[in-house]
Amino acid sequence: MSNKTQPRILPGFMELLPEDQIQFNRMYDTIRRVYERYGFLPLDTPTIELSEVLLAKAGGETEKQIYRFEKGDSDLSLRFDLTVPLARYVAQHFPDLAFPFKRYQMSKVFRGERPQKGRFREFYQCDIDVIGSESLDLVYDAEMPAIIYEVFRELDFGAFTIRMNNRKVLNGFFAELGYSDKIGDILRTIDKLEKVGSDAVKAELAEFGVSEEDSLKILSFIAIKGDNDEVLAALEAQEIANEQYREGVSELKSVIGYLRRFGVAEEAFRIDLTIARGLDYYTGTVYETMLNDYPSMGSVCSGGRYDNLTEYYTDQKLPGIGISIGLTRLFYQLRENGIVKSGSSSIARCIVIPMGEDDMNSAIAAAAVLRGEGIPADVYYQQKGMKQKMKYAARLGVPYAAIIGESERESGSVMLKNMETGEQESVPVSGLAAKVR
Amino acid sequence: MSNKTQPRILPGFMELLPEDQIQFNRMYDTIRRVYERYGFLPLDTPTIELSEVLLAKAGGETEKQIYRFEKGDSDLSLRFDLTVPLARYVAQHFPDLAFPFKRYQMSKVFRGERPQKGRFREFYQCDIDVIGSESLDLVYDAEMPAIIYEVFRELDFGAFTIRMNNRKVLNGFFAELGYSDKIGDILRTIDKLEKVGSDAVKAELAEFGVSEEDSLKILSFIAIKGDNDEVLAALEAQEIANEQYREGVSELKSVIGYLRRFGVAEEAFRIDLTIARGLDYYTGTVYETMLNDYPSMGSVCSGGRYDNLTEYYTDQKLPGIGISIGLTRLFYQLRENGIVKSGSSSIARCIVIPMGEDDMNSAIAAAAVLRGEGIPADVYYQQKGMKQKMKYAARLGVPYAAIIGESERESGSVMLKNMETGEQESVPVSGLAAKVR
Repeated sequence: MSNKTQPRILPGFMELLPEDQIQFNRMYDTIRRVYERYGFLPLDTPTIELSEVLLAKAGGETEKQIYRFEKGDSDLSLRFDLTVPLARYVAQHFPDLAFPFKRYQMSKVFRGERPQKGRFREFYQCDIDVIGSESLDLVYDAEMPAIIYEVFRELDFGAFTIRMNNRKVLNGFFAELGYSDKIGDILRTIDKLEKVGSDAVKAELAEFGVSEEDSLKILSFIAIKGDNDEVLAALEAQEIANEQYREGVSELKSVIGYLRRFGVAEEAFRIDLTIARGLDYYTGTVYETMLNDYPSMGSVCSGGRYDNLTEYYTDQKLPGIGISIGLTRLFYQLRENGIVKSGSSSIARCIVIPMGEDDMNSAIAAAAVLRGEGIPADVYYQQKGMKQKMKYAARLGVPYAAIIGESERESGSVMLKNMETGEQESVPVSGLAAKVR
Repeated sequence: MSNKTQPRILPGFMELLPEDQIQFNRMYDTIRRVYERYGFLPLDTPTIELSEVLLAKAGGETEKQIYRFEKGDSDLSLRFDLTVPLARYVAQHFPDLAFPFKRYQMSKVFRGERPQKGRFREFYQCDIDVIGSESLDLVYDAEMPAIIYEVFRELDFGAFTIRMNNRKVLNGFFAELGYSDKIGDILRTIDKLEKVGSDAVKAELAEFGVSEEDSLKILSFIAIKGDNDEVLAALEAQEIANEQYREGVSELKSVIGYLRRFGVAEEAFRIDLTIARGLDYYTGTVYETMLNDYPSMGSVCSGGRYDNLTEYYTDQKLPGIGISIGLTRLFYQLRENGIVKSGSSSIARCIVIPMGEDDMNSAIAAAAVLRGEGIPADVYYQQKGMKQKMKYAARLGVPYAAIIGESERESGSVMLKNMETGEQESVPVSGLAAKVR
């Protein structure tokens, strides 16, 4: 082995065994199917972009994580999210797009952060966004959680809650207290409430010059609890004249109303005033999604509304709303929590196994029958002993093995073995598809 | 616009409008579906690998094209094909894989070559490979073109021909002439025959020390034509004792025999002795695929057999066979040739259009009915005039628009407009799915 290179990948990169990749792909395909069912259009922007374009807005932490390099005379970067490329795309192709522009993109993004458990340097984001030209109706704010609802019902990982808030409610409330100029700081601070607790939040708010009295007001405001109608009533009852606050409450009420019309079960969404989404660009509705039985996983699908996506590229006013599922991290967490189990999946529904060389033609024909019915089928072509052939079938985790020997070949049948129960039965090739589907 | 960044991408990168992306994705999905139907397992290796690992073998032209950069202390590269990552993967995960290991990977690869028409720096490769441990039966050499056959029939771009050869036939023939030590040079030279003509090939062969007499022998050998059985008979009739030659002819004969059993139409495959596939690592069967009406497009799917994929990483002997479709380039060429037409596709089958705000609930409900039947549907939520709403539907290219006004709302129906013919009819919501499917 002396001059062999040790085969390995970098830390912080996910690479799966085939049986796990199949499960990952099923999740990917489910998300894509729901996105398409709502009429979202596919995009596939380049992985590599000009740094000047991609980093028109970025700064601070984000910029440090970028994979950035030179090739020829060009200063290049790998995309670090799908939102900036969307902004660039919409600004660039504006005349060729119909608005509202609804697109999905489900691609890898890259962030060279310090690798740690559950953090990846290369990971899939599954995004949908709707971009309006000049304006975008509030119904879209309800369509987003309706889609989240459908995605997570189809993914079938148990009960979940879509927590919603509206940044105008928070902004207006903070402005009313006299902190218009510190809204960003306050938002980022209360965003950490669940993680660090109220004492730490109070201490940090004090650093920003928020009085202890106001800190308590803020904490008691965002602690307003109850069912959606109760929270709405409490918000409306607040003696706050601030116009932005009033607008935010009214928006929240409308969105909740639409959500009900979308048929989303009441227990699946909840107004939660602690949801702030620290990212600066959100301006209205914001979302987080929790799996009820796994709160430690944090939000598995987040997003919100922004007023102007493309301001770094164009003077057009393009408000939008979007959500994102970090699929790589989600898959990792589902496996860590035993919700997705390793090694129990296969592509082929059936593997056809010829006993001897003379049975090869029959095996090829039997597999063709299955494939003709759209059923993935494999054939074992290697000339090995039956023991080894069956071992291969077991390793693949394929549900059925169709064995063909002399008598099967002559009668146009297979010996169909259920690999899980071990049961065997003789099945005519013409009836094979119905049995293994 | 003074301090706006001009939104743009790099030359040599493909970015599509949504209606084209839909067509691209249909091709992608078709290829994937066929690969899975044959039981190939999905892989998704990292985009970024350690240079030391990825470039264990590379050199010359390839290495110059690599996107290579440092991040932290690591020397990194973007993958330039899917074959080297497969070799690394198989060597790394050997104990966890079942052999023969059949995998597909359909991902972007990166080559920083000089951009030119139809050449891309970032492009999709759609690969399947079968890797055996120690040995791999010849039937797999026939399964590959059987899969190519099914892929290109389903892609439905007209007649195509899979051209096949066997490197042992060529190697044995050149060895018989006494050029065992120049086989690589000769192969790369005759590979250019179609492009540069026989005079240029003769001149280049002379440079490598091939006598004029032998040049003529080589050219007349690879010019052997006829149907598959005629070519096989001509090859068998050659007075060549060389063992490798005999083995190659025998393999070619077996593969052709198996191909017929796979049900591949005789006109779709042809032994063509000019097919050399200059890449050094092929050792047996080689393939190229031509669209009959568009020979100038060159090969749209190529591949072959190699004896030892992983020699740079492990002492295990792992022979394999694989094919690759360069999807980005293929899509580009199909569009250039007018085979794929721009702008005639949409995700949604139907867009539901509420005439006024009061019709919104009915519109949401009608869309839910369609989606419940798995039919992608869109709803226009913006409060605009009907003219603008219909214009949006037309821009999207969606086949049907379901318009809901007061009378439709009250009768539980929609006014269904066929956007292509302009015909309209009143359809009850319960019958909508059947109409637009």
